[in-house]
Amino acid sequence: MNAACVTLTVRVDLGQRSYDIEIGTACLSGFAAALDRWLASRGGSPRRAGKVLIATDAHVHQPHATRVASSLSTAGWNCRTAILPAGEQTKSLTGAERLYDELVEMRADRETVVVAVGGGVVGDLAGFAAATWARGVPFVQVPTTLLAQVDSSVGGKVGINHPRGKNLIGAFHQPRGVFIDTALLETLPDRDYRSGLAEVVKYGMILDAAFLEYLEEHAAELNAREPGALRHVVAASCRLKADVVERDEFERTGLRAVLNYGHTFGHAFEALCGYGELLHGEAVAIGMVYASRLAERLGRIDASLTERQIGLLHALGLPTDLPSSSQLTAEAVLDCMRLDKKSAGGALRFVLPSRAGHVELVADVPEAEVRHVVEATA
Amino acid sequence: MNAACVTLTVRVDLGQRSYDIEIGTACLSGFAAALDRWLASRGGSPRRAGKVLIATDAHVHQPHATRVASSLSTAGWNCRTAILPAGEQTKSLTGAERLYDELVEMRADRETVVVAVGGGVVGDLAGFAAATWARGVPFVQVPTTLLAQVDSSVGGKVGINHPRGKNLIGAFHQPRGVFIDTALLETLPDRDYRSGLAEVVKYGMILDAAFLEYLEEHAAELNAREPGALRHVVAASCRLKADVVERDEFERTGLRAVLNYGHTFGHAFEALCGYGELLHGEAVAIGMVYASRLAERLGRIDASLTERQIGLLHALGLPTDLPSSSQLTAEAVLDCMRLDKKSAGGALRFVLPSRAGHVELVADVPEAEVRHVVEATA
Repeated sequence: MNAACVTLTVRVDLGQRSYDIEIGTACLSGFAAALDRWLASRGGSPRRAGKVLIATDAHVHQPHATRVASSLSTAGWNCRTAILPAGEQTKSLTGAERLYDELVEMRADRETVVVAVGGGVVGDLAGFAAATWARGVPFVQVPTTLLAQVDSSVGGKVGINHPRGKNLIGAFHQPRGVFIDTALLETLPDRDYRSGLAEVVKYGMILDAAFLEYLEEHAAELNAREPGALRHVVAASCRLKADVVERDEFERTGLRAVLNYGHTFGHAFEALCGYGELLHGEAVAIGMVYASRLAERLGRIDASLTERQIGLLHALGLPTDLPSSSQLTAEAVLDCMRLDKKSAGGALRFVLPSRAGHVELVADVPEAEVRHVVEATA
Repeated sequence: MNAACVTLTVRVDLGQRSYDIEIGTACLSGFAAALDRWLASRGGSPRRAGKVLIATDAHVHQPHATRVASSLSTAGWNCRTAILPAGEQTKSLTGAERLYDELVEMRADRETVVVAVGGGVVGDLAGFAAATWARGVPFVQVPTTLLAQVDSSVGGKVGINHPRGKNLIGAFHQPRGVFIDTALLETLPDRDYRSGLAEVVKYGMILDAAFLEYLEEHAAELNAREPGALRHVVAASCRLKADVVERDEFERTGLRAVLNYGHTFGHAFEALCGYGELLHGEAVAIGMVYASRLAERLGRIDASLTERQIGLLHALGLPTDLPSSSQLTAEAVLDCMRLDKKSAGGALRFVLPSRAGHVELVADVPEAEVRHVVEATA
């Protein structure tokens, strides 16, 4: 097959670090051609005999990573595949060491390409290895979950966890390109798929009222994982995130903070319910509802906007309240938020909606208001 | 004490990543004031209650790191010191893990400053930890060896070793500033001190004939470690390296390759004699003589330039030939060079002098010429 299968392209404009996200359906066999385009666009010399390390995990190795490897081998690339254990534990210094060992073993050089075929864990880990091998080698992503397609594909954040905290060790390392095949979502477990939709709803809420309407009007197609709707939603989400990242690549101006809508509550819920009990997207869905209620308390919006989000999240099969078993206290939630790196020097900050498609970073939110929202809702 | 003790400043001009190298003698008590200047110059807010992690090793902890810590504590900084084992083995993933643990323990945030007080090993390791903690925190160097002062202070290369190769894992992470106190060199062991002088001679040979003459005329002052001569030589070396790095920060254009004069032979000699038998600078000194002889063979220079280098290196107490015990064969040297990452795709490349103060990167050097030089000299 060929590039014709790629039907949408999102350009992430970051000067010398610009790259394309190419989106299609059932197009994995066109991967090698895309890689050639990306390397050529940087003025690279032809590398038909170049080396590629594919990082993947045991869940997606068959058939996804195998197909990527097959596309590359056919095009003359020298491929090696590292199959990592699936799960968050892989995103560690030990996981990075595993990839370094593979790179040594294959005698990788500064032009060896690292390709991540997997979800966020594989992408973050492989990106970290690519950022730190030989002071940075080309990195490419083939995200296989909806969450990775709409979130970790854009932004250049790569990293691993420390035993005492997530993503504490990392770098900014933009990929040379991202190759998204929405057909890979067909076999994604239901909860994982819906968890990705929560981030999609987030983009509409924070940046684009028309996109929010699109989601409301096409919930049925999304629930059916209809390819055309998926391509549109993935491309629109990547475009919206890219707009933010382009203006704040290194997270210095604070602009990038809007992407954390629903995440201050969400992170606390994830941590307090025990990681794994709530998927990230589920926690974000519930977190958006809480943040929206907090915005109501502060007089920033009226209840109809919260109801609208609840309606859309329900239509997409997402939770909007904590599991009844959780029994979180407001104090525990506040403690967790104070520890969250998104709170600046102790004062609580929240990303809160002011209308559909628009949020603001609100500093110095009184703890009493947060407490009230948690107690009234829980 | 105050900033008055800093007598020379070298500005490394890298756009947003520009920084100053401040050079003085017996000026460590002025370190906190320098740090304040550097942070303020980036528009940072006052951080009197900020956090600093000092990375050092058991050899230089007393008294150097203690003095740096004392300057910082007096100025109100919250300091923690990590005392690493001295030696190349520390420059590993395990060493990095040790620093990450310290950063977690002190609840470091994105504004925590990592200060390296030590030689190249400590600087490279601490810089790598700073580059990868929270996707990059401010990094500052207080180099305590002559080699670190004239070489690793400039260029932003940070990294660690893989068990199978040096510096395979790393990043580019420019420091916010480098603080050089030449008084720290007074207690440096003789071989370590002279090893640093080899890199100084290299700068003269590759970039600045007038500086080469200065070294010839001031060898006695340098052997006596006279402060004025040291400050001049350190500042001139940093300036010369900075001129190269400013034009090729990420080692992409090949310009930075001139800094490898003497290193293609030198790396082979280091590896084949066993690391530690020859210090890095000693291997570079011998390597420059071999490279110069190779340039003679290729008709690029006449023998007088080689003799001139030998004269200067001898005057500075440096070796100009391999230890008689080494018995290297030309084949072993060539094998080693073929593995060296500085050789591009198998063809041998050398940085060779064309006159005092000027070198060129010469590709496709016939192996027979290299063999002849090794056999004629060994």
